[in-house]
Amino acid sequence: MKKSSLGELDCAVARTLDVIGEWWTLLILRNAFHGMRTFDAFQTDLGISTSVLSQRLRTLCDHGVLEKRKSTTDGRSFEYRLTESGLELYPVLIALMQWGERHKPNGRGARIELLERRTGELIDGAYVLAKDGTRLGAKDVTPVPGPGADESTRTLLGHRAARTLGTD
Amino acid sequence: MKKSSLGELDCAVARTLDVIGEWWTLLILRNAFHGMRTFDAFQTDLGISTSVLSQRLRTLCDHGVLEKRKSTTDGRSFEYRLTESGLELYPVLIALMQWGERHKPNGRGARIELLERRTGELIDGAYVLAKDGTRLGAKDVTPVPGPGADESTRTLLGHRAARTLGTD
Repeated sequence: MKKSSLGELDCAVARTLDVIGEWWTLLILRNAFHGMRTFDAFQTDLGISTSVLSQRLRTLCDHGVLEKRKSTTDGRSFEYRLTESGLELYPVLIALMQWGERHKPNGRGARIELLERRTGELIDGAYVLAKDGTRLGAKDVTPVPGPGADESTRTLLGHRAARTLGTD
Repeated sequence: MKKSSLGELDCAVARTLDVIGEWWTLLILRNAFHGMRTFDAFQTDLGISTSVLSQRLRTLCDHGVLEKRKSTTDGRSFEYRLTESGLELYPVLIALMQWGERHKPNGRGARIELLERRTGELIDGAYVLAKDGTRLGAKDVTPVPGPGADESTRTLLGHRAARTLGTD
């Protein structure tokens, strides 16, 4: 997955994909968000090889997304737990799940539903928000060069100059 | 990327990853959200081979995420445009960007900033919301079996039985 050019490393999306942008890695995180913690449980559920799973878990630990620690119930075994940084990937996972349920339905309804713990109600989903809480679509947002912008940023954004995304 | 087992195909996250879960595909979508439309522009920015780019664009068109149509400015050339379904991937992209800016900063500040078109203010980001608009973290949400649940769903969710995510 580490195919990033020097230019790509400047992009926050590309840097995030360097950590989690791999099929199995995102499914490991999905399972961790669902409460799974042990190597054996991940392996049984995902059906991947020991070496692939070890490598993916190591990458996630190296980047501080997961933390490996002694099991709280069995001091001889280990658990993989989401760190604070890992927990902040939740909107990524929910946005992926939401899009799949809507645009690639399995025909039998959602396998998993998500309830707000406080109320027991279904959650609404992942949304892009303005400062005042307004829900924004892609067409409500304009990308502009930030403090870290360089020539390639300006070229990239030049493609949308004087036109509105998705319309003409 | 199509390593999905039969069980994985039941999962909305896995089905979404089958469409977009590839490093270059997500960067193509990032550029499309920034207003990029032509094959040449994607190729120049990403620096990938013609065959890889063609294949990724074809997959996105086959799944209805992008649409290939005659250019509005030059009838002899083609453009790739986000469909309505493609535009709904916006929360995925914003959530990836937000996490990268926060947890993998490049040290020089954001390359791109996102302004709300209506107000000109910086947007806030991607959040998981309750029905009433409350912003939820992973620990505020409980996954439960949905109508499409099967034995593997129950096994997966069994790992979190009687305990709270990320706490003991």
